[in-house]
Amino acid sequence: MTVETAPLADRPSGAAAESPEDLVARLARDGRAAQRVLARLTGAQKADALRAAAAALRAAGPAILEANAHDIAAGEAKGLTGAMLDRLRLDPARLAGIADAVEQVAGLPDPVGGVIAESERPNGLKLSRVRIPIGLIGIIYESRPNVTADAAALCLRSGNAVLLRGGSEALHSNRAIAAAFATGLESAGIPAAAIQLVPTQDRAVVGAMLTAAGFIDMIVPRGGKSLVARVQADARVPVLAHLDGICHTYVHAAADPEMARSVTLNAKMRRTGICGSMETLLLDTQFPESASVVAGLLDAGCELRGDARARALDSRILSASEEDWDTEYLDSVLSVAVVDGLDAAMDHIAAHSSHHTDAIVTADATAAERFLNEVDSAIVMVNASSQFADGGEFGLGAEIGIATGRLHARGPVALEGLTTYKWLVRGSGQTRP
Amino acid sequence: MTVETAPLADRPSGAAAESPEDLVARLARDGRAAQRVLARLTGAQKADALRAAAAALRAAGPAILEANAHDIAAGEAKGLTGAMLDRLRLDPARLAGIADAVEQVAGLPDPVGGVIAESERPNGLKLSRVRIPIGLIGIIYESRPNVTADAAALCLRSGNAVLLRGGSEALHSNRAIAAAFATGLESAGIPAAAIQLVPTQDRAVVGAMLTAAGFIDMIVPRGGKSLVARVQADARVPVLAHLDGICHTYVHAAADPEMARSVTLNAKMRRTGICGSMETLLLDTQFPESASVVAGLLDAGCELRGDARARALDSRILSASEEDWDTEYLDSVLSVAVVDGLDAAMDHIAAHSSHHTDAIVTADATAAERFLNEVDSAIVMVNASSQFADGGEFGLGAEIGIATGRLHARGPVALEGLTTYKWLVRGSGQTRP
Repeated sequence: MTVETAPLADRPSGAAAESPEDLVARLARDGRAAQRVLARLTGAQKADALRAAAAALRAAGPAILEANAHDIAAGEAKGLTGAMLDRLRLDPARLAGIADAVEQVAGLPDPVGGVIAESERPNGLKLSRVRIPIGLIGIIYESRPNVTADAAALCLRSGNAVLLRGGSEALHSNRAIAAAFATGLESAGIPAAAIQLVPTQDRAVVGAMLTAAGFIDMIVPRGGKSLVARVQADARVPVLAHLDGICHTYVHAAADPEMARSVTLNAKMRRTGICGSMETLLLDTQFPESASVVAGLLDAGCELRGDARARALDSRILSASEEDWDTEYLDSVLSVAVVDGLDAAMDHIAAHSSHHTDAIVTADATAAERFLNEVDSAIVMVNASSQFADGGEFGLGAEIGIATGRLHARGPVALEGLTTYKWLVRGSGQTRP
Repeated sequence: MTVETAPLADRPSGAAAESPEDLVARLARDGRAAQRVLARLTGAQKADALRAAAAALRAAGPAILEANAHDIAAGEAKGLTGAMLDRLRLDPARLAGIADAVEQVAGLPDPVGGVIAESERPNGLKLSRVRIPIGLIGIIYESRPNVTADAAALCLRSGNAVLLRGGSEALHSNRAIAAAFATGLESAGIPAAAIQLVPTQDRAVVGAMLTAAGFIDMIVPRGGKSLVARVQADARVPVLAHLDGICHTYVHAAADPEMARSVTLNAKMRRTGICGSMETLLLDTQFPESASVVAGLLDAGCELRGDARARALDSRILSASEEDWDTEYLDSVLSVAVVDGLDAAMDHIAAHSSHHTDAIVTADATAAERFLNEVDSAIVMVNASSQFADGGEFGLGAEIGIATGRLHARGPVALEGLTTYKWLVRGSGQTRP
């Protein structure tokens, strides 16, 4: 489709004629040049630029909604599901929310320049490690147009340039949002190339981004399993990835029964489609109120799939297959097992958890501390709903995602996770013996 | 060679008959099981285990030296260079140094359990981020047998299990060192699988390690450019890599002449073969003593390759080609350019630095701070020799390497760089609204 391969208004024409590798290299060069400017700005300057971007998004409201209507019409013609169309659809309220979110990020503290550690050596060398931006961050995402503004705002606040590659269903919405955002930055004296949207939907460009080591410093995939898996399989650039959230809640023998009921009900049923929702419930064989806990979930409309001992608790519990213990339902479905104590629970979690978020409900401080120390997940909770696994709930402000890898940043990732550090060494002429 | 494919004495026999993928999977399962034990040990327990390993290395001295003599004889027969044979050769003094280094690591503070940050949310949730081991670390290295003990000690101190794959020239030495190390750990009650040496030199095993995502958590290549490049090109597992050290020293107009002479001479000539040695000297056109700085280097036996303005300083300076500005000589060779001020120097560094270590010599505090803030390298120095770029010199104790990537750990990497973190959430029954 010509409309899909047409370059953005503010891009050199002929972009579509370049090879995917040349296109990514050119966009990356422009983005890295803009990032060198960003890296030298004060926190106040970056905040002002984000407020200008928010204002530009509000001013461009009609154009953005018109572009979105174009995407919605195309999506309906393509037969997108109602859920996909809902993710895609913008209205004045959602648009206001997008601009407000950009302003909220402007209000978050600037992570850049923060001193992580300082020391002085016997020879008088003064060392410090200070936070700096990562550089150029590539975001590969699906149909939610709000990601265009959210991701750009987080990257900008942390001094990073961003190269955005959204889903084709949202192409016109993303172009309108990115163009408005860039206009706002320019009005604040920041090169528009600090935020760039890939001007073509050619899928080969995604491959070129994933292999652009040295051009792109980190890739953040935002979307479903298949997208993240493809990115992880093909990437030569470091990836900040979010995989499954197979989250467990273990109700210990010493759990308060009412707390066990309310926490497990909230962990599963508050919202079943988010990564922090409980997918497996582990009930201690010594916990006396297991029947009422499962009854609460069943009465709330949750399908339970249990092992033999769990099924003995309630005739409504179906039989679990082996795959159930490794399944992220993201739905009103829950696997339930009865376990013989803390160690058995932690063994089950070690075998089946995706190391995202796992929780224990207990009034026993010793059991709680053992669980916190020994469960090897990005987030380990005591007496709380796993649905708190969220950057906003952790007080980080907006989040770029929840990382399930082991290196760099883990769990909810916000501004600090979009920075790295360098060592500063201040001497007075020292030479090494 | 049968001797190269023979399984280690303490490995199940038949290892050589497995596919490389099955072998790595088995070693990884054993290593991960041992790591779960390590993760629960106190710092004192890990320190005791390392002291036991040091003692075992001393006790096994004769066997290790005999194995090393075998490697040296094979290396001489293979026609290894004198430099390679020297890296490979062990003697009682070097062996004592290896055991002493393990004991020194035992004396370093345990990074595991350290609290990175704590906060309390308005709803009463108490959050903390604590350091934990990364898990199973793969080390792929070349001919220095001391790496076997050094890397194992650093991984153990930080609670990680390690899978070692050394060079075939050092196979017998590595096996003897790894076996002694494991014996020491076992005597302290730690599973021997906490440190495992790949029992075959089959090159396909390296490929299997690099793609063992989910089994191996991080790969650290220790060796020359070609090894690191191959690892980076093929790895599916995160890599903590050390690439070139194209380090610059910029002598600013306001540099103290004597400091400029001593710092540049030390940065280049103290040891020319290390990654922190200066490879490019930038002289400010306003610095009045450039001629004596280059004379000092030339008189010390360094070959200088300069641009036209540098060559005008001394007739002994050869002509630099374009490649010289991007070359890591690791030898008594230096490229020299005359630049027009701080911004020109930083532009040259931005264009040609490998972002390892770059330094400025100046008495002007404003120029120094601009250089520290704006030069985007892992280590940025003022008035000090770039040869201080070293974990020991930074007070980190032994180092696993110097990372030139942008994520996770940068610059000298020691124990903290071998840890990651998890979020601990302590609640009192909170459910998410």
